[in-house]
Amino acid sequence: MTVDLAVRLRDVVGPAGVVDDPAGMSGYLTDWRHAYSGTAAAVVRPGSTAEVAAVVALCRGSGVAVVPQGGNTGLCGGAVPDSSGRQVVLSLTRMRRIRDLDAANQTVTVEAGAVLRSVQEAAAAAGQLFPLSLGAEGSCTVGGNLATNAGGTGVLRYGTMRDLTLGLEVVLPDGRVWNGLRGLRKDNTGYDLKQLFIGAEGTLGVITAAVLKLYPAVRSRTTAWVALPDPRSAVDLLGVLRAHAGDRLTGFELMSRQSVDFVLRHVPGARDPIAGVHPWYALVELSDTLDDAGLDAVVESGLAEAFERGAAVDAVVAAGAAQAAALWALREGVSEAQNREGPSLKHDVTVPVSRIPEFLERTRRALADAVPGIRVVTYGHVGDGNLHHNLSKPVGGDDDAFRARAPELSRVVYDVTHALDGSISAEHGLGQSKRDVVVDYKDALDLDLMRGIKQLFDAPGLMNPGKVLPD
Amino acid sequence: MTVDLAVRLRDVVGPAGVVDDPAGMSGYLTDWRHAYSGTAAAVVRPGSTAEVAAVVALCRGSGVAVVPQGGNTGLCGGAVPDSSGRQVVLSLTRMRRIRDLDAANQTVTVEAGAVLRSVQEAAAAAGQLFPLSLGAEGSCTVGGNLATNAGGTGVLRYGTMRDLTLGLEVVLPDGRVWNGLRGLRKDNTGYDLKQLFIGAEGTLGVITAAVLKLYPAVRSRTTAWVALPDPRSAVDLLGVLRAHAGDRLTGFELMSRQSVDFVLRHVPGARDPIAGVHPWYALVELSDTLDDAGLDAVVESGLAEAFERGAAVDAVVAAGAAQAAALWALREGVSEAQNREGPSLKHDVTVPVSRIPEFLERTRRALADAVPGIRVVTYGHVGDGNLHHNLSKPVGGDDDAFRARAPELSRVVYDVTHALDGSISAEHGLGQSKRDVVVDYKDALDLDLMRGIKQLFDAPGLMNPGKVLPD
Repeated sequence: MTVDLAVRLRDVVGPAGVVDDPAGMSGYLTDWRHAYSGTAAAVVRPGSTAEVAAVVALCRGSGVAVVPQGGNTGLCGGAVPDSSGRQVVLSLTRMRRIRDLDAANQTVTVEAGAVLRSVQEAAAAAGQLFPLSLGAEGSCTVGGNLATNAGGTGVLRYGTMRDLTLGLEVVLPDGRVWNGLRGLRKDNTGYDLKQLFIGAEGTLGVITAAVLKLYPAVRSRTTAWVALPDPRSAVDLLGVLRAHAGDRLTGFELMSRQSVDFVLRHVPGARDPIAGVHPWYALVELSDTLDDAGLDAVVESGLAEAFERGAAVDAVVAAGAAQAAALWALREGVSEAQNREGPSLKHDVTVPVSRIPEFLERTRRALADAVPGIRVVTYGHVGDGNLHHNLSKPVGGDDDAFRARAPELSRVVYDVTHALDGSISAEHGLGQSKRDVVVDYKDALDLDLMRGIKQLFDAPGLMNPGKVLPD
Repeated sequence: MTVDLAVRLRDVVGPAGVVDDPAGMSGYLTDWRHAYSGTAAAVVRPGSTAEVAAVVALCRGSGVAVVPQGGNTGLCGGAVPDSSGRQVVLSLTRMRRIRDLDAANQTVTVEAGAVLRSVQEAAAAAGQLFPLSLGAEGSCTVGGNLATNAGGTGVLRYGTMRDLTLGLEVVLPDGRVWNGLRGLRKDNTGYDLKQLFIGAEGTLGVITAAVLKLYPAVRSRTTAWVALPDPRSAVDLLGVLRAHAGDRLTGFELMSRQSVDFVLRHVPGARDPIAGVHPWYALVELSDTLDDAGLDAVVESGLAEAFERGAAVDAVVAAGAAQAAALWALREGVSEAQNREGPSLKHDVTVPVSRIPEFLERTRRALADAVPGIRVVTYGHVGDGNLHHNLSKPVGGDDDAFRARAPELSRVVYDVTHALDGSISAEHGLGQSKRDVVVDYKDALDLDLMRGIKQLFDAPGLMNPGKVLPD
């Protein structure tokens, strides 16, 4: 970076807003998992939309690439700079204001750097609900949630971040500010431009603020743990419960026995909710806006039907909040527990819900053929057709040897996913980790149109280069 | 149209697929309201996506503009050709197949020419619900619903057509077929291209098929008619009922006394549900997937709270389906009833829900100043901030004199809408009727980006020219 640019950036954001010493920058150059690392000319931390616009325009004028970054909790390296040392990391974390909450309109207007949990808390303080919920909610930001179209455990009922967004404010790659910050549930006055920026992982501009939907607060909740004979029963149980409980069904998580075994082994205090060993489990949550909604009766009659059909073999309904929390802890502990078993080769895929059984059967067979004894840890959001299908080495296997086979094993998972009309990235995006492999699973026409849009918005290619779009 | 093109079009779609005699074409050249008329070189009715692609490519090759058309029920002239006689109307009405219904995935794959009601019926036959519902559902097509991002009375709970769409198949303006026909609730592998075509009114390509979301069938329903002292009470009542009933609240329609008076006067058999005259009414619907959901108790406790707060002054809860239907008939009769009072100057706007009272106060004052005695018929979807704000002449006024003031009076409505961060087209689109006026209510940057996208997809400008985009 030229001295001149550094000086002008400091003029815009103030001395404290530009970090360029190695110690100060280090936290911005590696993602939280330490899976991706880069270097940078500087980390710039603007405090307002106008400052973001000025920074982007200055970098554009100097031919310097900008890497937008939120909480840096992404799983695909989308917010990590490359190793050239010439890119500027644009951190939104100083822009964390809740600009407005309109209770009657059920919307909240927040800046991109706001931590997801702070938005959940602002909604709760107004007696409402912001339903996006995911593991990193204590540190991920709204801007990152938008850039990756984040999902999580509430999608079954409330949809992804895209579905929760009514308006956006975006600094375009040329420094112009696009104001789409409207809180309207209907607006058919032309192309819905905001949709382009959601899920674009910062390659078409920098999202600086958003208008998000709020929902009525939940006042009652019931959680159940259900033992299943096979994956087909999970799809069957989901259908029974949805037909029965409708919108009350707000959570439906699948866990393989292998997932549960890892949690029981590694998470202190974890207990198996149901005696005996069952191949699959479902974590079911019903919730309602009424205080006394009779949810236990609803879930129990749904389960009764599932038992009759053989879609469930055993079940426990949590007696209270503590038991419910213990059940959710089993689900939330999987990722950490698996890390204790050596490298975890992660896959985040979707297939149509109806094809989940076939997906599991085909991938598990092919993976076992490739690596006898491989431990496949499957868990995820059945209602979204979204499975986390993460691979651990055979007992006693060598870490490096297993890691070395990652590309080959991912191919196995992705080929089956593609054959079943699925997606190789459900809720994590492409970032830098999947942008090359996606070429084999997307039509050339998709990539052609995506490149055309990228060219339209960012002809010089300075906005988060090396992400999403294959070379 | 050259003889050569005519011959080649017949080769593609067969002799019966090309209509070019005046009598045969007439039904395609005027919208159902007879508000817009044009002429055409021919009406082409392809029977498959491949035929659509061939037709589009042929027209492109000959420099002939294509006007995609579904049920021709649009309100803004978006599917009506111009008066040049050189355009080709591309009618999708032969493509009406339900290609697939995946009950476990809760999706239905339909062709663009399928009538909305036939999709609702296919869903019901599978024990599920396709929730889009609007007045023209017996004749409008899914392709038109997608092209205009249709709304209707179910948006409060289920969202607009955009929210109900998972995948699209589109013939691009150059004749290439874009296959985005996936039934996935999560897919973050790049830009969400389908969003560009939804609401683009056929200016970026021809939608030929879609994968739509289904929901659990509704098994119980309660309908109430509530008298309100003022518009602020409508917003207040909505808040009370949403907080209380949550997702059970599936309908909340506002009607002014003027709307009700017109219906009582012109719709045979219409009866006033509540004694006395009240300035505003809300039509409230709760529904549930459970057979015995206790909805009456839910709505009554919500209404009790509203009475306490003075947000409601009287109410009746329908005793059964017949009474409920009679209440809905009052709402659905407004548009026809108003036509009996002379010309109706229609406006379809949204503002944030919280600003509805201010919108009504400001527009009604300004309209009365402009035309003393003007009759403002307001009704619509409060939960969406979407009001139909339609103007009738003063009693005894002259039709033509009133019509002549339409542009001026629309300005009054749109200026207030814009001042309140609203939209001048909530659910009807821009078509040809609003494409010029929108220039005054959209940022230049929005129009700049829209034109860039149009240029990217349709450089020759042959796909539904003269619609949406201002000259």
